[in-house]
Amino acid sequence: MTSRNTPPRRLGVAGLGTVGAALIKLVTARGDFAPSGDRVVISGVCARARMAPRGADISAYAWFDDPVALARSPDIDIFVELIGGSEGAARAAVEAALNAGKPVVTANKALIAHHGAALAALAEAKGVPLFFEAAVMGGTPAVKLVRESLVAERIQSIAGILNGTCNYILSEMERSGSSFGQVLKQAQALGYAEADPTTDIGGFDAAHKIVILAALAFGGAPDWGAAEVEGLEGVELLDIRLAGDLGYRIKLVAAATRSAEGVSVRVHPTLLPLDHPLARADGALNALFIQGEHTGRMFIQGPGAGPGPTAAAVAADIADVLAGARRPVFQRPADQLSRDRAASPKALATKAYFRLIVRDEPGVIASVSETLAECGLSIDSFLQKHMPESVGEYAGGVPIVLTTHPAVELVIFDAIARIGALPAMITPPRMLRIANI
Amino acid sequence: MTSRNTPPRRLGVAGLGTVGAALIKLVTARGDFAPSGDRVVISGVCARARMAPRGADISAYAWFDDPVALARSPDIDIFVELIGGSEGAARAAVEAALNAGKPVVTANKALIAHHGAALAALAEAKGVPLFFEAAVMGGTPAVKLVRESLVAERIQSIAGILNGTCNYILSEMERSGSSFGQVLKQAQALGYAEADPTTDIGGFDAAHKIVILAALAFGGAPDWGAAEVEGLEGVELLDIRLAGDLGYRIKLVAAATRSAEGVSVRVHPTLLPLDHPLARADGALNALFIQGEHTGRMFIQGPGAGPGPTAAAVAADIADVLAGARRPVFQRPADQLSRDRAASPKALATKAYFRLIVRDEPGVIASVSETLAECGLSIDSFLQKHMPESVGEYAGGVPIVLTTHPAVELVIFDAIARIGALPAMITPPRMLRIANI
Repeated sequence: MTSRNTPPRRLGVAGLGTVGAALIKLVTARGDFAPSGDRVVISGVCARARMAPRGADISAYAWFDDPVALARSPDIDIFVELIGGSEGAARAAVEAALNAGKPVVTANKALIAHHGAALAALAEAKGVPLFFEAAVMGGTPAVKLVRESLVAERIQSIAGILNGTCNYILSEMERSGSSFGQVLKQAQALGYAEADPTTDIGGFDAAHKIVILAALAFGGAPDWGAAEVEGLEGVELLDIRLAGDLGYRIKLVAAATRSAEGVSVRVHPTLLPLDHPLARADGALNALFIQGEHTGRMFIQGPGAGPGPTAAAVAADIADVLAGARRPVFQRPADQLSRDRAASPKALATKAYFRLIVRDEPGVIASVSETLAECGLSIDSFLQKHMPESVGEYAGGVPIVLTTHPAVELVIFDAIARIGALPAMITPPRMLRIANI
Repeated sequence: MTSRNTPPRRLGVAGLGTVGAALIKLVTARGDFAPSGDRVVISGVCARARMAPRGADISAYAWFDDPVALARSPDIDIFVELIGGSEGAARAAVEAALNAGKPVVTANKALIAHHGAALAALAEAKGVPLFFEAAVMGGTPAVKLVRESLVAERIQSIAGILNGTCNYILSEMERSGSSFGQVLKQAQALGYAEADPTTDIGGFDAAHKIVILAALAFGGAPDWGAAEVEGLEGVELLDIRLAGDLGYRIKLVAAATRSAEGVSVRVHPTLLPLDHPLARADGALNALFIQGEHTGRMFIQGPGAGPGPTAAAVAADIADVLAGARRPVFQRPADQLSRDRAASPKALATKAYFRLIVRDEPGVIASVSETLAECGLSIDSFLQKHMPESVGEYAGGVPIVLTTHPAVELVIFDAIARIGALPAMITPPRMLRIANI
């Protein structure tokens, strides 16, 4: 423990958006948060525009136009990167700080997902920590949970709702009966979604996070190239309603599993049973469900974003820097990280939900069920019904919904392609995976 | 990071019950679990009976009859205490290990709740860590979550289901419609409850755990003397059914709150709204709900006990010892821990559930409601009904259930005493608190 008379530890903060402003407020109000006894102060800051309104007074800090110069400044002890993005200024500044032997705390999921292994090697070569709790689930400590608390656990799978924007949109579609497009516009107007929502809606933000968690859970390096990503774009209100009738809720689930087939890391809309803890995480919440060999099923839920929670996570990492633990960045030193074989998606088994819109004429059910039988795909439930009132007319057809028993995805994609070719189909059939967690 | 060629780190394990046996299996199977690169081995062991059947081969380890001798042995690097109990052998051995300058990992909630501050002072004076993740929620990392991840957070309240035995009994009463006594006997036969169930059923085990969490959450020392504890003994099936009719589930909730009145740490049966995350933690699960200034509401749920999860938590602490972080045992060095004023229970406000069994005669409702008005206690809902069929006859009377608006407990206890004195009462009225979380 450090005496209170030692000099304060000086932060350089690059990126002064809402999280940066919240961090400044936190450190200004309670710079004594670290149990080590060190006092934390902000020394230098850097942002795109010096004069932008940000609800935090930065006049007392040294201003840097260049984040790399801030990262190298002899007047800072810890570099905090809140710029974002996997390349450019964020990457250059983090590399500069590590090269200068300075501990780095970042909230940048894209950077760690894309360049985690190389940055870990650099940090370990320089003997300085690189922490990124705020990169995953904002204020909810997923990174430390997997990296430290479950260090002796053999994790089998980890599945989460890791993007608050997507979760808000799905919850709001279900609640209000509005379409995806309508709710997205609302969310943009309210500031819950970006003007260009691709990173969130396309599933890439959630994918960055699950790539990081998969690395920690399975002892590997983050492997962005192996992630399969499918976003929310194809989720229709009709499917939310029909899935609800079957006892499921649709969520954008990011999942990493380890099996005899290899490691699988993927993001896609998923039907979850209504009583599953992940199904109940509504609105902008984030949630994570972990299955391990010793601990069984563990679940954590909390704020996945927001300036306050994210700044608190950055501060927790700063406290860890000051505690001085000697840990590799991931579960092993960078040169010993495993290179697990990526499971072929086509070899993975899943239960599936098929939704068809068909002409209301005799023989349709027979032709669908014959097609499934030809594919060797076994049906769990089969439901022809009137269009839900809340959805209204839909391409003039009637919906057929069926769920399958587990089958490898090769078979499922084959079946959906063949069904789509049947003459009675009015629209292309829709397939969604059903969680096996 | 340590080279793989450094000598292994040697554990002395005192206490070879189910957790000790699981730890031996874990370390034997994967002694390389620590990210520091240290290999962990077991060197010496100690238990009450050398020859007891325990499903783990201990013949390769040095045997000690005396845990204090094991704790002091020059052949161990880390002392693991799995004996249990706040005094006697466990306390003596932990003190001996710390005095000998050896890091200690313990699963002993009673020891830390009663003697945490003194042991922290000793550990800090000797410059060695004292970790106790496994003492709270078994394999679910509550201690690290509060101690490290929320270190920059101002926690307002923390409420948990921290005793799996009590939670199993309540879940089973609700499910099967059996009485408390019947389910307790079953649980004892199945090994889910001890032959002497006082520690669990009386709420003391949960109280040990919330005392520890309260210390970490509020920056104080564990203060066992300030905990108020009420166990499960008075919970009847009738109340489970009636609470269910009102939209509540009864759980044994351990809660710590900080307010202008001071700090309150208590355990008692509590009515939780059915949609509250804590209400949904069934069976032997443990769950924790934390409200903080920045992070808002956070929830974690997982296995609260069991050899595998608890041993995994002990191993995570061992990995932390090997990572060598410099942290005080609690949130501040032992001599700087705050001494928060304990809130007077009578000054705390709560909503309450009153259940009366009354003679079925005119004027009873009037006399009850007049009494409540005299006490200044405002009624939220009032329900006279037939006895639930599943409960059957009950003292020949009819139940009246009412819930109150929030009031200080002084007023609530006054009201329940006055109602109990009314001539129409057939049995003493029952009061349960309703969660305000």
